[in-house]
Order: sequence, then structure tokens, then C-alpha cells
Amino acid sequence: MTESSQSDLSVVALAGGVGGARLIDGLDRALPPGSLTAIVNTGDDFQHWGLHISPDLDTVMYTLAGLSPEAPGWGIDGDTFHVLAEAKRRGVDDWFQLGDRDLVTHLSRAGALARGDSLTRVTADLCEALGVERPILPMSDAPRPTTIVTRSGEELVFQEWLVKARAAPAVREVRHDGTDQTTQAVLDALKAADLIVICPSNPYVSIDPILTLGGVSDAIRSTTTVGVSPILGGKAVKGPLATMISQIDGLAPSAEAIATHYEGLLEGYAVHRGDGFAGPFPILETNILIQSKEDRVVFARELIEFSRSLR
Amino acid sequence: MTESSQSDLSVVALAGGVGGARLIDGLDRALPPGSLTAIVNTGDDFQHWGLHISPDLDTVMYTLAGLSPEAPGWGIDGDTFHVLAEAKRRGVDDWFQLGDRDLVTHLSRAGALARGDSLTRVTADLCEALGVERPILPMSDAPRPTTIVTRSGEELVFQEWLVKARAAPAVREVRHDGTDQTTQAVLDALKAADLIVICPSNPYVSIDPILTLGGVSDAIRSTTTVGVSPILGGKAVKGPLATMISQIDGLAPSAEAIATHYEGLLEGYAVHRGDGFAGPFPILETNILIQSKEDRVVFARELIEFSRSLR
Repeated sequence: MTESSQSDLSVVALAGGVGGARLIDGLDRALPPGSLTAIVNTGDDFQHWGLHISPDLDTVMYTLAGLSPEAPGWGIDGDTFHVLAEAKRRGVDDWFQLGDRDLVTHLSRAGALARGDSLTRVTADLCEALGVERPILPMSDAPRPTTIVTRSGEELVFQEWLVKARAAPAVREVRHDGTDQTTQAVLDALKAADLIVICPSNPYVSIDPILTLGGVSDAIRSTTTVGVSPILGGKAVKGPLATMISQIDGLAPSAEAIATHYEGLLEGYAVHRGDGFAGPFPILETNILIQSKEDRVVFARELIEFSRSLR
Repeated sequence: MTESSQSDLSVVALAGGVGGARLIDGLDRALPPGSLTAIVNTGDDFQHWGLHISPDLDTVMYTLAGLSPEAPGWGIDGDTFHVLAEAKRRGVDDWFQLGDRDLVTHLSRAGALARGDSLTRVTADLCEALGVERPILPMSDAPRPTTIVTRSGEELVFQEWLVKARAAPAVREVRHDGTDQTTQAVLDALKAADLIVICPSNPYVSIDPILTLGGVSDAIRSTTTVGVSPILGGKAVKGPLATMISQIDGLAPSAEAIATHYEGLLEGYAVHRGDGFAGPFPILETNILIQSKEDRVVFARELIEFSRSLR
């Protein structure tokens, strides 16, 4: 990592949903304006009610806008559900919880995409309307849907597996279909980065879709990259990750198992207290449970200091 | 008109928005099940928030479902506007008033159209979910947008002229673009009809779009057709019709001016008390102000009796 001062440090964070969004929020507060770019998974994106839904982009955007509830971490705090109630009443698909205020995001996005705007442009406009100034870049402008292949051979769009099927069917494989092209904005951000942070997101369904895009892994290999474990004390803070590790890689869920998954990409790694192990790179062992806004910024500062110590 | 009993009378009503919807509601109650088909203008259809909005189809559907407020006649009675409030907060286009419950119609329609369903099929499914059993047929499955050419030469999509510009710019011409093909369902309904009713809708923007579709005028000429004046005492019950008559045809707004517009199509005509004139066909002069549900069915019964007397 370059010896630049914190004020001109250029940081890129790769992230999925809630865990990633919280670290990005911490980094956003810990870093001076203009230093952070978030590259966000769009493998979860899907069509619902005729709209393009981008669950991870929205979670990051709402978190940076200060609109997310601390639990469950997604959606808009205090949102109402009048549209959903009417959908239920009429027998319309109601398995995906769309709030009334949240809907404006999806409606605006659908309208703008229909007019021919790119997802990158749409995301920038949505962020601007919510007062979010740090750039949030979708990993790609083209669809790259994540498919869950279950042990019984069924293929499910990710959100259908996660939400509709409650992540119950055992996973045999996670497949990334569609484009393998990222955007120029993503490549430029990676190229300009002094530090890349792999956020505490699900590697299979949130980070791998980004890493496997053309040019991304190469950029990561040529830049100081630190990871943050999404597994704390053998458990995922949220979501189906712990089960997936054993189902897909046959490993017990641990911070180390995640580091193994990212083999060859990391120069440093942050784990929760008690999760330390002897790795091939320096390990920061600290409080990485960052549900509250205060914990987020405290950990982000520690992570930046730790990263500055890496060569 | 055939001498069939009221119970096996087959009636087709051509309609636009609120006025047409009210007469259809009256006919719906006055006729036995299975006798009424509504053919509804889709010239007002437009894209908003990335959704396909069908104002007239929805007004007829909500009216038959008993969901419309008596005033203003469109939308869902008691609907909330949480989505619209958020749109306003974010600076998203908010000139078209979409309620939260109403939105489910547009979202369902957008989803189904995106899956490849026809507008006819979508409309049938939306009606079924709201318990509306009488067939409501869109005049066409393909776009046929109504464009208002203003006196200053500006061209506006109809709803933008009507709602956004508050019908203020003077009209030079009403243009019907897009398809001139109706659907097989419409042609079959017209062919099976013993009686066609031209509802008290705006002829320029609600009825002409239907009449000028291939095969419709011919079907009307070969079947007993009665019109109902949308002008009462020189005024339109609702909307910009009175002004349009003078702007487009240079005539004072009157029941007779409307009948002249439909020259050659009518075998009978219903006008409000005091609006009678010596026409080339029998005229029913009665109370045609049908805002209340009771007035609608009383007038519908009178109109059916009157139509049965025509040869």
C-alpha cells in the first residue's frame, strides 16, 4: 500500500448487501470526501412486478442515506406497505417485501432503464436524489444473474431461493450467468485504488459475481487488498452463508474458511475477537460486529490503520 | 334491433373514462349476466414511472368493481398516496396521481405485459382479481396514442395535455397514431351485438380512437346503435369537451353538435331534459346525469327500452 496520507487515500470496497453496506457506511464516515468508491454486486438483481430490483445496490444506498433500519438492515426505516397489502388482497405475488417508499426507487429505475439509461447512471441519479454523495457503482450494467443449483438439481433465481424458498433447499452449486464484463467506471476505480476492501459479504453470492468479471481479479492482485470475515465465531451475522460453506466447500464455517476461499487475493484480513488463525498474511483481530453506526466507524478506522501497515 | 327479449339481448358499449364507466355500470346492473361487453378506449394509455397506464380501462374496471369514488370518478375510493409522497420528496415526476392501491394495477399490468401477455388478457386477469365479471375489452392490443396538436403547433401525449398542462393549450387537432387494428375479441363482440351503445364520452379523444379502427365503423353501421350525449345543457359533465368542440369543429357545445359528429352511425340518441332537437332519428329526452349509482341503472333501463323500440 502506498504511503499516502489518509486524506488522499483512494479506497474501493467490494460489497453485497447488509454486512457490506455497514462497512461501507463506516468507511464513508472514516474517510474524507472523495476517497471511497463502492462496487456493488448485482447478481441478486431480478425482475419483480415488472420492475428491475437491485437488492444490494439499494441496501448500500439506503444505508449511506441513513434510511436503513438497524434491523433487518434492508429497506427504508418506517416504510409503509399499502401497495403490498393491496397486492396480497388481489392475489398478486407478495413474497418479496416492497415498501411504499422503497417502491419509488424501483419505479424510478424501471422508468430510467426503459428510457435507455445505464444501471450505473440510474444508480447515480437515485443516490443524488437521496443525498448520497459517495459513488456507488453497480458491478456491471448488464445482467449477471446468480442461480442457485440445489442438491435436487432445481435451478432458482437467487432471491427466489433466499426469500421465497427461505434458503431451505441445500445448495450444490452457485452459478453466475450472463455478462462477464464490468464497466469502465469500475475498472477506473480499481485502477486508481490504493486499497481494496472485500467487505464482510457472502463470498459465493455477493463477492464472487464481482471477482469473476473480466479484469477485476487482476486489478485486485496488483493492489493492496484486505478482507473482512463475514463469519464470526463460526456463524454468519446474517443470511445463509454458514450453511453454504459446508454445502458447497465441505468446510466448517469459520473466518479461515472464507480466507481460503479468497486465496491469492488478500494482503491482510480482519476477523472477530477469538477467530484469529495463523494465515499467510497479517490478521487484524478485533470487534468486527458492526451493527451500530458507532461500531461501524470505529472498526473502519482500525481497518484503515491496519491496511496502512501492510506492504 | 332484433325482437329478442331483454334476457338474451347482446349489448356492446363503446366508452372512454368516467362518463362511459358510469353508463356501463348502469347497463351492467340493468342487463342479465352475459349480455354486456365494454369496448374501451386505450388512446389515453401512456408510460409513466416505467409502467403502462391505461386510464380509461382502469376507470371502467374500478367503477364496475364498486371501487371508484363518486367524485372525482377515477382511482380507488379511499386510496392512500404514500408512494406519490415519496416520489415528490425525491423530485420524481409526480404530476400523475397514482394511489398506492391503484399502483398494484399498473405493476401487475407491467409485469404481465413484460412476460408477453396481451393487453386484452392482462385486463381480463386484472378484472378477475377484482371480481369484475363483465368483459372489458381494450379497443386494441397495440398502442394507438392520442396526440393533442395545440394551436401553437406543440404536440402533447393526451394525458400530458389533460393532466400536466391542465387542458389549457388550445387544440388544433387530435391525432390518432399507431395501430389501426382492433382485436378479434372486439370484432367478435361487435358481430354478436344486437345493440351498440356509444357512451357519453368525449368523441374526439375517447370514441373516435375506437371508431377509426379497421372494421369498427362497418360493424356499427350494420347494427342498431344509440348514442348518449356527453353534453348536458351546453356543458360537459366533466373534462375539456365543451371547449374542444368549439376549438376543433367551430361549433357551440350542444347535444346536437355531438350527434352531428356521429353522423351516419346512430339509429337513436339520448339527450338530457331540455336538450332535445329535431334529428334524423328518434331522440330520448330524459335525465342522463348519472353520477349516482341509482341514476345510472334507472337511465340504463330507459335507454334499453328506447333502443328496443328502434327498427
